[in-house]
This record gives sequence, C-alpha cells and structure tokens, in this order.
Amino acid sequence: MSDGPDFSLADVAREGLIEPSGAEPANHDGTGRVDLAFTIHSLAEGGAEVPPTQRGVRVPPGVTVFDAASWNGIAIDSTCGGHGTCHKCKIRVEGGQVPITRHDVRTFNSEQIAQGWRLGCLVQATRNLAVEVPPLTTRPKAATVGIGRQVILRPAVQKRYVELQEATLADQRTDLARLTDAIDDLELTADLHVLRRLSTVLREADFKVTAVIVDEDLIDVEPGDTSAHRYAIAFDLGTTTVVGTLLDVGTGTPLAVTSMLNKQQPFGGDVITRISATMMDKDTLGRLQEAAGATLAELAGQVCRQAGIDPAQVYEVAIAGNATMTALALGIDPEPLGVAPFVMTSAQPPSVLAAELGLTLHPRARAFFFPALGAYVGGDIVAGMLATGMDRDKRTRLFIDVGTNCEIVLSDGDTILSTAAPAGPAFEGGAIRCGMRAADGAIEVIKLDPTALGDEPAVTLGVIGDVEPRGLCGSGLVDAVAELVRVGLLDSSGRMVPDESAKEIAPALADRLAKIGEERVFLLHRPTPETEPAECVYLSQRDVRELQFAKAAISTGWTLLLEQLGLEHRDVQQVQLAGSFGSYLSTASAVRNGLVPKLTVLRIVAAGNVAGEGAKMALLSVRERAGARPLLE
Amino acid sequence: MSDGPDFSLADVAREGLIEPSGAEPANHDGTGRVDLAFTIHSLAEGGAEVPPTQRGVRVPPGVTVFDAASWNGIAIDSTCGGHGTCHKCKIRVEGGQVPITRHDVRTFNSEQIAQGWRLGCLVQATRNLAVEVPPLTTRPKAATVGIGRQVILRPAVQKRYVELQEATLADQRTDLARLTDAIDDLELTADLHVLRRLSTVLREADFKVTAVIVDEDLIDVEPGDTSAHRYAIAFDLGTTTVVGTLLDVGTGTPLAVTSMLNKQQPFGGDVITRISATMMDKDTLGRLQEAAGATLAELAGQVCRQAGIDPAQVYEVAIAGNATMTALALGIDPEPLGVAPFVMTSAQPPSVLAAELGLTLHPRARAFFFPALGAYVGGDIVAGMLATGMDRDKRTRLFIDVGTNCEIVLSDGDTILSTAAPAGPAFEGGAIRCGMRAADGAIEVIKLDPTALGDEPAVTLGVIGDVEPRGLCGSGLVDAVAELVRVGLLDSSGRMVPDESAKEIAPALADRLAKIGEERVFLLHRPTPETEPAECVYLSQRDVRELQFAKAAISTGWTLLLEQLGLEHRDVQQVQLAGSFGSYLSTASAVRNGLVPKLTVLRIVAAGNVAGEGAKMALLSVRERAGARPLLE
Repeated sequence: MSDGPDFSLADVAREGLIEPSGAEPANHDGTGRVDLAFTIHSLAEGGAEVPPTQRGVRVPPGVTVFDAASWNGIAIDSTCGGHGTCHKCKIRVEGGQVPITRHDVRTFNSEQIAQGWRLGCLVQATRNLAVEVPPLTTRPKAATVGIGRQVILRPAVQKRYVELQEATLADQRTDLARLTDAIDDLELTADLHVLRRLSTVLREADFKVTAVIVDEDLIDVEPGDTSAHRYAIAFDLGTTTVVGTLLDVGTGTPLAVTSMLNKQQPFGGDVITRISATMMDKDTLGRLQEAAGATLAELAGQVCRQAGIDPAQVYEVAIAGNATMTALALGIDPEPLGVAPFVMTSAQPPSVLAAELGLTLHPRARAFFFPALGAYVGGDIVAGMLATGMDRDKRTRLFIDVGTNCEIVLSDGDTILSTAAPAGPAFEGGAIRCGMRAADGAIEVIKLDPTALGDEPAVTLGVIGDVEPRGLCGSGLVDAVAELVRVGLLDSSGRMVPDESAKEIAPALADRLAKIGEERVFLLHRPTPETEPAECVYLSQRDVRELQFAKAAISTGWTLLLEQLGLEHRDVQQVQLAGSFGSYLSTASAVRNGLVPKLTVLRIVAAGNVAGEGAKMALLSVRERAGARPLLE
Repeated sequence: MSDGPDFSLADVAREGLIEPSGAEPANHDGTGRVDLAFTIHSLAEGGAEVPPTQRGVRVPPGVTVFDAASWNGIAIDSTCGGHGTCHKCKIRVEGGQVPITRHDVRTFNSEQIAQGWRLGCLVQATRNLAVEVPPLTTRPKAATVGIGRQVILRPAVQKRYVELQEATLADQRTDLARLTDAIDDLELTADLHVLRRLSTVLREADFKVTAVIVDEDLIDVEPGDTSAHRYAIAFDLGTTTVVGTLLDVGTGTPLAVTSMLNKQQPFGGDVITRISATMMDKDTLGRLQEAAGATLAELAGQVCRQAGIDPAQVYEVAIAGNATMTALALGIDPEPLGVAPFVMTSAQPPSVLAAELGLTLHPRARAFFFPALGAYVGGDIVAGMLATGMDRDKRTRLFIDVGTNCEIVLSDGDTILSTAAPAGPAFEGGAIRCGMRAADGAIEVIKLDPTALGDEPAVTLGVIGDVEPRGLCGSGLVDAVAELVRVGLLDSSGRMVPDESAKEIAPALADRLAKIGEERVFLLHRPTPETEPAECVYLSQRDVRELQFAKAAISTGWTLLLEQLGLEHRDVQQVQLAGSFGSYLSTASAVRNGLVPKLTVLRIVAAGNVAGEGAKMALLSVRERAGARPLLE
C-alpha cells in the first residue's frame, strides 16, 4: 500500500496528526474510494436513548473519520478542532485493524481499545469501515468546522428567554423597553415585524418569552422558552452544484447536508455562458435569479425535512458563491463581470432577507453573502480562506478550488496571493462526450492492467452507487487520463497512440481503442464485446484535450503565483484541493496529470467543501465572519 | 375694533412683532375670519416670468400674511424666520391701509410704501386683503417653518450629481466604490434595490449620474443631473383630519397642501372607539391599517398632481400622529393603548419604507414617524413642540392642541410638562346634532344681537364657502355657546333659560328657542319662519353639555399643569392653540368659554397645524429631527 520512497511515517508525524505507535498505520496511495458505514446513537430530550440511525458515506482514502462525518452532517463530540487534544471525539470502529495512537492509549483502557474505541480525528479512513458514534455528551461551547478550525460559538443568531414583570400604572414602560431592559448587554433594534407581534405575544405568554436576535436586530419574540431551537443554513452556491448544510447554531452541530444541481444549469454550464444569456435577453436575469432562489429553497426544504425541524426556526443563512453566482442570486446585473474591464457592482453584497431570495424560513431570517476579492475571486474563495485558516497559518500552502472556474490561492505565511483560472466544465462532467456529474452510475475510479491475462480484468471501474456505468464524472476523467498515460496509451502530448503501438504496449487493452466517426476513443465500459463504440462509456481524444486545457489553465495559475513569491514546487508544504470535485479527486492522478505541483500525495489533502465550511463558520461565529473583512484589504 | 382696556399698543410691542409707528395698527377682537386673496408671481427655469396664479385663503384675524401664506403652501422669500430682520418677505398689499413699521421704512422707499409694499411677516391680517407675492429671488439655504422657526436646510434627502471616470483594466474599482469615492463626505450604504440598477444606469448615462441619498443610505442612482428635483411629504395624521404638505426639500418651499377626512372614520370617531373595534374583531386592525394607508396615499397623489411633480421623486415622508394613529398606520396592535395601564408597544416607531404603508412614491422612499412621550401624548405633540420651539423658548407658554384627544403642554422655560384630555369629538363636529367638519356650508362664526329691531339681523352667521348653511363646525359650536352666554340665553350652568325669561332678556332672539322632541334647541339658521325646527341648523341643549364636557377636560388639564409648576393664569405669557380646529377657533369665544386661561386675546395665538409644521421641520432638517429625541428624556 506504500507509495514508495516518497512516503515515510515521519511525513505523517510532521503533519502533526499521528504519533508513531506500535501498529503501523495503514496508508493509502491516493486513489480509489472508501465506504464508511456510520451507526449514530443519540438521546431524546429527557436523556433516554433512541434507536440508532444508519448512514453510509463514501470518501477519498486518507480522510479522517471525524472529517468524513463532519462533511456529511454527522455530529461527533469535539472541542479541540481535531488535534487529538480534547479526547472527546470517541468512536468505535467495528472489527477494525485500526492503528492505536498515543492519544488513544491515554483516553481508553485496554478493553475499550480492544473493542475498537478510538479518537475519530486520528483515524484515517484507508479502507471500508463500520463506525459507531456515541450520543453527544455536551452542548459544546465550541465547534470544529472548516479544515480543523476550532471555533468558539458566538453565532449572530441568539435567543434569550426572559420572564418579565407585567406593566402596571406605576410602571408604564413600553413593551419594547420592558424587553430590552431585560437584555441590557445588547443594543437591540426592533423592526416592524416584531413590533406588530410584540404586545400580543407578551400578553398571551404571560410575559414569558424568548427574544430572537440576529446581530443586534430583534427579529421576533416567541412565546415561552424556545432557546434550544435556533438553526441556520450554510450554502455553497456553486455554478454547477449547490450544497446546503443545516446547523444547530446553539451547539455548532450539523443536522443535515444535501446537494443538488444548480437550477441555472439550463442557461449554460459556466458563468460566462450565463452572463451572455442575460445580455441576449433582458428577462433572463430575472429567470436566473428565480432559478438560484428555487435551488436554495429546495435545498432548505430538504435539510429541514431530513432533520425534522420547523423551517420557521431557521433565522439566518450564509451563502458562499463566486461573484457571478452572488450577483445572479441577488438579481444584480452580471454584465460588467463578463466583459473587460471585469468589474463588480459591489464587493460587499447588501444585507437582505432570506425571503427576498425566495426562501421560506423565518420571515425575517437574514441572508449573509460573503464579500468578494474580485470579479473572478469571489465570496466562495473568501469563505474557503476562512475555512482553511489561511490567514492564520504560517506554512506555505496552496489552495486550489477545482471547478468550472478554478480559484487558486497561495500563502507563504505572510503574503496571500490569489488568481482565477477558467478551467471550463470538464471537471464537473461538462463538455466531455460521456460526461456526467458525480451521481449514481458515474465512473469515478479507473485502474488499467495493460498485461492482464485470461479472466483477469484489464479495466477495473469504481462506479458511484455500484450500478451499471452510465458516464464519466470529473474524478473519473482525471483518473482515466492518468491511467492511460501511465500505461502508455496516451503519449506525452496527450495523443492516443496508433493501434499498432497499442498492441505492443498494452496487449490486454488494445481492443478498447476504437473510432467514433473520425475521432479516436478509449472504451471504458463495453457491456459486451459486440456493443457499438457509440453505445459504450468512453473517453475521447477531444475529452483528453479538454482536460489538458483545464490543467493548463490551473497549472499556469499556480506557477505564476509561485513565481511571484519566488518559490519552487518543493517549497509548498501543503496543497489543499477544495470544491465538491477537488475533494473527491484522486490525489495520485492529480499529481500525475500535473494539476498540482509534484509532491508526495500525503501533502495533498482533500479539503472538502471549503466554501460551505466557511459559510458554516460565518454562521457559528461573528468573530470569524468579521475575519472575512481583512482578507479584502 | 379695540377689545377695551385689555388691549394696548404696548402689548403688541411686547410681543416683539410690531414697532409703534405713525399709523396705528388695526387690531382685532379675536372673532370672525378674514379673506386673503393672493396673486402669486413666479419665474420659469430660464428666469422668464410666467402668468401669476390666484389663491384665496381664509384665516382668523391677527395671523400674519406670511404665516397665512405659509400654512397654505404659498412660498414667500424669508431667511430670518419672521422676525422682521432679513427684510426679504416682501409683499404688496393692494389698496391696503396697512400699518407701516420701522422695518418697512428701512426696506422700501416712500414710493414703494405708497404702492403698498410691506414685509409680510409684520402685516397682521385684520381685515380682508389682496396681496401680491413677488417671485422667489433665491433658493434659500434656510426656510421658515413651524411657529416662526428658522431652519437651516439640511434635509435627510440629498442628491449629488457626479461625473465619474469609466472603469479600465488599470482601475477595476467596483461600480459602487467608484460612486462612493466621489461622495467621500458621507459613509454611504447601498441597498439591494440600488445595486440592481447601478451598473446599468452608470453605463447608460455615461457615468454621469445623480445619487439619491436618505440619511446615509444610497437609495437610488438616476441618469444625468436630477439634483433640482427632490421632494418629500409631511403628514399630520389626525384622528379625524389628515393633512399632507408636499415640500421641495432643496429650497424648503411648500408646493401643495391638501387635507381630507381620515378613512378610518367609519370605524369610530375617536381613538378609543377604534381601539375597541380592533378588540372586537381581529381583522379590524388590518382594515384600519389599510384605511390609514389609503388616506395617506390619496393625499400624496393629490399634492403631487397639484404641484405637477412625479411621485417617484418623493423620497421621504414624515408622519406626525398620536400614539394610536401611529400604531394603526403601522399595523401594530393598539389594544394596550386602550386599556389600563395604557402602555405603548414602542415609543420609537421602527424605520419603514413608505411603500410598506401603501404609498406609491419612490419605491425606497423612507417613512419617518415621530416618537411619542406616552400613550396619550404622541408623536403629533412631539412634532408640535418641535414646531413651536417650546424646548428653546424661555417664556411661560401653554400649548393646547384642540381636537378629539386634546394634548396640553406647559413650559416655564425650564420645565416642560404635558398631559392629555379626552375632549371627545365635539370640536370636530362629532356628537353634535347638527355637527359637521369645517367644510363648505359649515357655520364657523356667529354674532347675536338680542335687541335687533326691524330689518336688523338678530343672528349673523359666517359660513364657510359663503353658501347656504348646512351644519355647525367646531369653531361655530364654541362661538354659538359663547354668544348665547354673552346675551344671557344660557345661564351660568349652561342651561337654556325658560321661554319667559328669554323674551325679557333677548326679545329679538326668543323665537329662536324651540323644542325638538323633549330637547330644547336654539335655531341658528331657519330658512323661513315656518321651517320645522328639525329642518333648521340648530344648537341643542345636549350639544352645550358636550362642549361643557370637553371644556372641563381641557381646563382641568391645564389647571393641573399650572398648579404643578405653582403658576397662576396671569403668569402665562402665551397660549398657542393648535390643531386644524384650534387654529380656527375664535380666541375671544375660547376665553369666554373657559377653554383657555383668562388672558387678553392677543396673548392667545393660532399656531396653525403644528404637528404638520413639525413634520415639515423634520423633513427639512436632520438637526431639528434629532431635537425630537431629547424631548423624550
């Protein structure tokens, strides 16, 4: 399982994550996928245990169990931020040959260790695992979000339960003064919505009410004590895929995560096509705005239903999107973003209500949009930088958000530089003959054996959902090209080799090379040997060119940034691959294709949906949110 | 014309308004009405004179020509605030035997004085006058509003015309930054509405635009230079009558004034009845809110049409109303205002858009509501205090806003006390048998001659519109009772004397006493001697009782306030009668009926629609508006 001389246990120790221990940790080569089967225990209000729920998730190998859970909305106790110090993220790996760390020994007795108990932040998922998650023991005062960022909970959304004295002729204070006098650590402002309800709610609830506050705006009063129920939704508003995470902002716990295609897709696969569409027909802006709103609204409805919470108790949403997605969601004309000299209407989006975006949550729920650095380094990147802590880390790190528009940020600990590369839709399955997004039926992992004999498979495919392959997603595309280069069927220029050479180089695979029309293709999935090439799932010569264009754009981006700071490839201490695609990319294939600098795969980490993580941080901490401002200066 | 020993020229001089001069000023006895016929000259954009317009107005005697013009939306140059110092309020009284003051002599040559030129702030309208108003000479930097208050113009609504550099690749500032950098004396905040328009307007207008600002909110950008067009509407939102004044906030000039009955009337004549209606049926609050909005919207439409301006160029409204009217207009439940311990939801109304009230003006026009002192001393009184400058005046003054709910404020120069008296609807013609509001056909002035002989009229009526009398308005009611007391037909307890006594006391009037059912009445207008009493316009015994209740409530109010400060009647240096009714009350009758302390009528001044004046001040000066705050503390 080793990646050869590039890898050593010392590397892992240098990352500060795992202490060498008796058992050699099982490492990975940066390819493939692992399945984690979670059994999640939880307690009802009174403390009684309720039947556990089951969740299966699929992540790239090497991700920690804690991160895999967190990305998928599964809450595990933690206060230290995944550094192995709080000893709270206890999980039990069933039947697992999982390495034992120094921290495990301090946390568990030998019987527990034998039963599989480990600290979740130290267990790398290198193979399929069954994981048991105990009930949350405390309402944490802090939560772990982003890339191991420990955030002290101080959400913009606050609830305060108060029991007030009724008015008398001797105490004719106004209803509002009565309430705000009881919450004198905040300078509250009441809007019309709350003033319309205030007197009725106070009297019907015998002056025992919960004030709902966002920042210093009193947005509602609810009868009785509802302070345990305060929720918010973090959105990663991508050009292709939109992800929503429902958070309990009182505990920092993610309650549900879901994603779907941006409903703006029919207007074009990338931002430029959508901007062009608004320039062609002036009604299109309104339709794109509605489509964005409908996407967010559908996701909001789904996460609330999944978690079984009342949408009216969602008081804030945070949205991380690129400058075009942000403009379109707000109904702001994106035309100046699409034509030279590429200017934004405003770097700082206005404060709006979620209802103005078409979301049916609390009627006065606020929508926070991340500010942008420029027309092509948008709020999603600012959110991602917040999530990765790039502004606080002294290491030299390269952050690449791989997507239709690919954003690249380099930090040497002092200076932060950023750029954007128009990679096109290849990574999200667009403009690829058999391209599809990462959904059931998509080939995401490919292994080729050029000399397979007899019954040995020459082509091994990893397919999402373990169903009949229907197409090729972005990570499958990168894998396919990397494997074809490795076995020699693609030459150094990216051209498929002639049939004669193929027979010599890779006898077991040569019959997979075919032609559709004038174009050469490599058949990845051929149901029967007689299936017509056009009926197969294949990689075409043009697909290879698309990936080359995308790779060229990205590598030009980070090469320029490295040059600007006078750095070499080897100076980069960590590469974070972000975005819903980047996180699921085979790191080995990414290195082989030149998408990232040539480094050991262990220095290349899947950062997950960092834009979404940044949005979660903004919801959980007004201090972190305020931290997005200096990034702009 | 003298009022006897109570009056002397020294009194006038003490008021600081008129210098004794060669011609004895013609004074008045506080009764009746005078008609002023204005001929208003104005200039077109280029400076060419346009045909003059004619306006007739009807005011109580003693009001200055300047005030009479101002109350009716007729603009006269002035910067000093009516103190005779700026010498700008030049008018020409046609054929007038109008006193000449020291200031007139300094301002005009003898030929001009002979032609009738005078300073308008020093001419008291004691008889019908024809007045010529010259065109405005300057865009004033200050305006006179309220009760002779001089206000330096600094409206919340500002316009700034800017010519910006287009964006280039070397200057990729956002559109918003480009605009706000050019207006760097303000910290502007842009809302979504303006961000949606900004990029299009900038480019279509070649980057030459006018920023529309309210406070520090950028609410719009308009193509080209529209800075000359900025308007606002001041509303006096009364329980019975609502008055709207359209202002050019750039010059402080009132452009149009109009009034109408509050459309909430069908729900009850006074605030308690309307509050009760909301308690009976929970849909009523919404209907009252709509009615208030519809009233304001209709007035707004009328003043814009009258002045010929585009409602979309009205960027702010200010609304002075009592606590109940304010709550109902905002859709806030008024129930706690109507039941002990009488508390408001909030003293400070929230900031809202005019559109939220149902007004179709600029879509982001703001609505400013005055804050309130208490459940029964509302924003209208705070506005009135601002207008009268009570917070700045060292004199002992009593301010009485006569209306359905009567508010009374006493200041001795240091301390300000206020109270409210539920006077009932008598003053606005409600609950009076032949009552009507002050409209065409309403008897407003009554003179009785108890010993008229032959053709001499025993009853002389002043009727609004000089038409056939249809009913009795508030000032007519007060006049009728005062006259009946004076001639002896009402005894000191307010009872109509027996028929036998009447024949002795007032032979010419005795046949006017009649009965309708069991109730005694005095026939004010009897078309023919044979007309049935019930077909006449009359004053009934019960009407007298209604006025007595109202008077008792009011005089109890100011008596308590005087006692609290240890003052006597004679210590009061000025009584200001405010409200659309108070201003038109006969001061002599008010004294005779005990509505106000027993003082010379010259110390009793009609203050006009002070709530409306306060609203105008708030629109013209953010400094004055801020002055409303300390009044609350």
